Amino acid sequence: MVQLSAEVDTAFAALSDPTRRGILERLGRGDASISDLAAGFEMTLTGIRKHVQILEEAGLATTEKVGRVRRCSLGPRRLEDETAWIARYQQMLEARLDRLGDYLGRTRRTQT
Amino acid sequence: MVQLSAEVDTAFAALSDPTRRGILERLGRGDASISDLAAGFEMTLTGIRKHVQILEEAGLATTEKVGRVRRCSLGPRRLEDETAWIARYQQMLEARLDRLGDYLGRTRRTQT
Repeated sequence: MVQLSAEVDTAFAALSDPTRRGILERLGRGDASISDLAAGFEMTLTGIRKHVQILEEAGLATTEKVGRVRRCSLGPRRLEDETAWIARYQQMLEARLDRLGDYLGRTRRTQT
Repeated sequence: MVQLSAEVDTAFAALSDPTRRGILERLGRGDASISDLAAGFEMTLTGIRKHVQILEEAGLATTEKVGRVRRCSLGPRRLEDETAWIARYQQMLEARLDRLGDYLGRTRRTQT
């Protein structure tokens, strides 16, 4: 199984908020300043800064001070471990449903 | 973009804890009682119950009372929206890196 790690914890936690997912979607269309994001999400600068900081700590957003503006962009984390984890969960779930199907099939045959 | 939803919030939040991911991995190997899980994770029954409840609310685990035992199993949620969301993030990140590559390529050509 994919190694359990603090990075996976912080990535999933960062993704558990709809505003933060919205910020990532916005950054997917191009870099943005904190002010751009605050205007787009009708949120205070302080509110946006907190969300961006959580995204940055999770490696999902990068910020850079350019003059007086903090420019935000997507990445660098590719979420490969998270994708692998979810894929493994899906495989386990499929396998469980297969086992359940086999069991029900055997039960039916026994009853007829 | 995948619709933002409370279900995606709760699924990612449920996955952000290593013990909860561990419980899902354990359930992937077969159904288990709360006591089985408590023994496996060296945690109190109350601690495990809380984690299982969060997983159940997120649709990642199902519990059923069989006599005096609460039996836990994987699913039913397939995490399809979450997979799609992460895949889209990865596409956006790739696109950003491509744009950056193009930009750097053009800058280099201009300088030579």
